Amino acid sequence: MNYHFTRRMNKIPRSFVREILKVTDDDDMISFAGGLPNPQSFPVEAINNATSKVLSEDGDKVLQYSTTEGYRKLREFIAQRYQRQGMEVEVEDILITNGSQQCLDLVGNVFLDRDDGVIMERPTYLAAIQAFGLYEPEFHSVPLLEDGADTTILEKILEEENIKLFYTVSSFQNPTGITYSESKRQKVAEIMAEHETILVEDNPYGEIRFMGDDIPPIKSHLPDSILFGTFSKIVSPGMRMGWIVAPPEVMDKLITAKQASDLHSNYFTQRVVYQYLQDNNVDKHIQSIKQLYKSQRDQMVHSIRKYFPEGVKHTSPQGGMFLWVTLPEGTSSMELFELAMEENVAFVPGETFYTENPEKNTMRLNFSNSSVEEIEEGMKRLGNAIKRLDNK
Amino acid sequence: MNYHFTRRMNKIPRSFVREILKVTDDDDMISFAGGLPNPQSFPVEAINNATSKVLSEDGDKVLQYSTTEGYRKLREFIAQRYQRQGMEVEVEDILITNGSQQCLDLVGNVFLDRDDGVIMERPTYLAAIQAFGLYEPEFHSVPLLEDGADTTILEKILEEENIKLFYTVSSFQNPTGITYSESKRQKVAEIMAEHETILVEDNPYGEIRFMGDDIPPIKSHLPDSILFGTFSKIVSPGMRMGWIVAPPEVMDKLITAKQASDLHSNYFTQRVVYQYLQDNNVDKHIQSIKQLYKSQRDQMVHSIRKYFPEGVKHTSPQGGMFLWVTLPEGTSSMELFELAMEENVAFVPGETFYTENPEKNTMRLNFSNSSVEEIEEGMKRLGNAIKRLDNK
Repeated sequence: MNYHFTRRMNKIPRSFVREILKVTDDDDMISFAGGLPNPQSFPVEAINNATSKVLSEDGDKVLQYSTTEGYRKLREFIAQRYQRQGMEVEVEDILITNGSQQCLDLVGNVFLDRDDGVIMERPTYLAAIQAFGLYEPEFHSVPLLEDGADTTILEKILEEENIKLFYTVSSFQNPTGITYSESKRQKVAEIMAEHETILVEDNPYGEIRFMGDDIPPIKSHLPDSILFGTFSKIVSPGMRMGWIVAPPEVMDKLITAKQASDLHSNYFTQRVVYQYLQDNNVDKHIQSIKQLYKSQRDQMVHSIRKYFPEGVKHTSPQGGMFLWVTLPEGTSSMELFELAMEENVAFVPGETFYTENPEKNTMRLNFSNSSVEEIEEGMKRLGNAIKRLDNK
Repeated sequence: MNYHFTRRMNKIPRSFVREILKVTDDDDMISFAGGLPNPQSFPVEAINNATSKVLSEDGDKVLQYSTTEGYRKLREFIAQRYQRQGMEVEVEDILITNGSQQCLDLVGNVFLDRDDGVIMERPTYLAAIQAFGLYEPEFHSVPLLEDGADTTILEKILEEENIKLFYTVSSFQNPTGITYSESKRQKVAEIMAEHETILVEDNPYGEIRFMGDDIPPIKSHLPDSILFGTFSKIVSPGMRMGWIVAPPEVMDKLITAKQASDLHSNYFTQRVVYQYLQDNNVDKHIQSIKQLYKSQRDQMVHSIRKYFPEGVKHTSPQGGMFLWVTLPEGTSSMELFELAMEENVAFVPGETFYTENPEKNTMRLNFSNSSVEEIEEGMKRLGNAIKRLDNK
C-alpha cells in the first residue's frame, strides 16, 4: 500500500541524539552524548516502599482510571513548593503530564497554528524543536549571552514579527548550561509584559543548582506565563512525570488537549511518586544529587583546562547536567565527532541544537552520567581528537 | 492577557462523559455512565510483587530513560500473543503507548492533514472523535448493523470520497457492544484492500469475550492495516499501557511522532507489567474477568427485559463492557437523563457518540462496574424513568 503521510511528518527529522546513543553503546566508549541523570541518584528502595504502600492501602483505586488533571495531592505538593519560593501558584494551576516533553506537545497543540511565529533560544533544546516542529510554526531565534537571552534582539523580533510563543530554558539550559541572571529575568518579564506573546519557561534543571544562589523562575515576575517542571531530574526519568503551570484560561484548553491525547497520565506512578515525596525528604535527596553532579562538573571543567588546546572555549555551569564547548572559528565539531569515535569518546555536535544557520564549531558535553575517572579519561581522549583535527 | 488559541482547540468539546462522571459521584446514585473496568479484577498483589522484583533486581535501569519503541521483551510478549492467533506480527511491528487513547493521537498526527476524510462507525467511540478531531478532518459515517458496519454504504463512501482512514472498534464496540462477524470481517478486508484507505482497528475489548467463539482481528485478513491493543481492560487502566501494531513504513513515522510527543512511555510501568505477565497466567486472569462480566451482563439483559416497557430495544453483547439501548422513535434520552437523575440512576445519552445527526433516542449502559444487585436496582429505577417519560 502507498501510505500518504501528513505534511508535518515530512518536516521532522528523527533525533540525531537518539541515533548517536545507539552507536555509543560500546563498552570501551566513554560517552558524554546522552542526557541521562546519574542512576546512582535514583531512590530505588524508597520507590519500592512507596509502591508497596499505595498498592496495599488503596490498590483498587491506584490501578483504576483517574482524572485528566492528575492526582490532586501531588498537584498540591507541587503548588506548595512554588509557594515556598514566593510564587502564587495554586493546585488548579497544575496539570500532570508525561514528562516535560508532553508539556511541549500540549502547548504546541493549544497555541500553534501553521506558520505562527515562535522564538527559540540560539542554541536551544533539540526535542523542543521537534515537538513544536510538528505544528509547523515559523521559528525565529534569539542568541544566548552569558546571562541569558540577548534582550535587544528579543525586543526587536517581538516588535517586527507576529510571535505566539517565546520558549526558554531559563536555568542551566540544555545544551549550553547557561542560566538567566536575576536582572535578566526581570528584564525579560518586562519586555514580555508589553507584548501579546506568551513566555513558555521550561525548568527541568532549576533545582539542581550546586553553586551560587537559587533564582526563582521568570514566571515569578510574569504570572501570565507558562512554566514546565518535571520529576525526571530529581526522582526518576523513566517514570515520565512532569507538569505544566498555567493560568486558568490556558489550563482549560490544556486539559482538553491532554484528554484527547491520552486521557490522563499514569495514575499508578502518580500515586507512587506522591507517596515517595510524603515518606522521604526530597530536599535532602536533591542535596545528594547536587553534591554528585558538582564533583562531576568540577572534574570536567578541570580536565578541559588540562587537556584541551588553547582557543577552545567552554561554559562553566552552576547547575544542571551540561556544558557547552566552542572550538576555534572554522572548525567543525561534526568532523571532530568522527575522530572522537576513533578515540572511543562521544559527544553531541552542536549543530543539531539550532533551528537555522548552525554554529558548526560547537558541541554539548553531558557530565551527570560519567564517573570522575571517566570524565578525566574522556576529556583526555577528546583533547587528543581536537589536536588531531587542528593538525589536519 | 488575551490568549489566542488554535483553530483546532475551538472545535473540540470537553468530554460530556467526563462531565457526567462528576455529577454521578453521589453515594445514592447508581451509575452506568462510566466506562470503568471492575476494580475487583485488578491483580493488586501480583503487581506489588512484580514491582518489588524489578526494582530490587534492576532498579537503576527501571527508573532510567528508555527507548521510544518500548521495552523489547514486553513487545515480544505482545507479538507472541498475536502469533498464537495465527497473525504475522513481529516485535518490530509494535510500539508501546500511553493506552490506546495515545494510539488515536499518534495515528492522527501521522495521517491526518486538515480536511482529510475519515470514516467512523455510527455511533462511534467518543474519545476517538475528540482525538482525531484535533487534526480537523472531515468525518463521514457508516451505520453499524448487528454484525458490523454496513458494507454497502462503506463501499459507496470509499468510491465517492477521498478517505484516509476507516476507524473501527471491531469487537464489543464502545458504545454499542456490537461485534463484527467473521464473514463481515473478511468482507471489510476485501473492500479495504481495493482502496488506498487505511483500516484503523481499535481492539480494547477483544479478549473479554464471555460468549461465543473468539474471532481474530480484521488485521488477520489485512496485514497492511493498523491495530490498537491495551492492558487497560485485562490488567489495569490507571497504568496507561497500550500499543500500536503497524507495518514498518508506518511504524517509522509513529516512532518519530511518539518521540516528539513524550519521548517514550513510562518505562517503570512497562517493566512492572512485563514482570507481572511473566510471573502470572494472564489467560487465567482474563478468564476470571470474563466470568465476572458475564454475570453482570446477564443480569442487565435480564433486568432490562423485566423492567423496561415494550418498544425499548437493546443489544445483547457477547463480550466487553457496554450495552446499547434504543428508545421508541421520537423519545429523547437527554430528557430521560433528567428524569433518571431524579431516580438516582445515570447513563450516557447516545447523542454524544455521533459525528453528525445523532440518534437522540439512544443511550449507553456500562455493566462492568456495578454489582448484580446494583444492576437489578438500577434497571428498575431506569425503567421507572422511561415510563415517566412515556407519560409526559
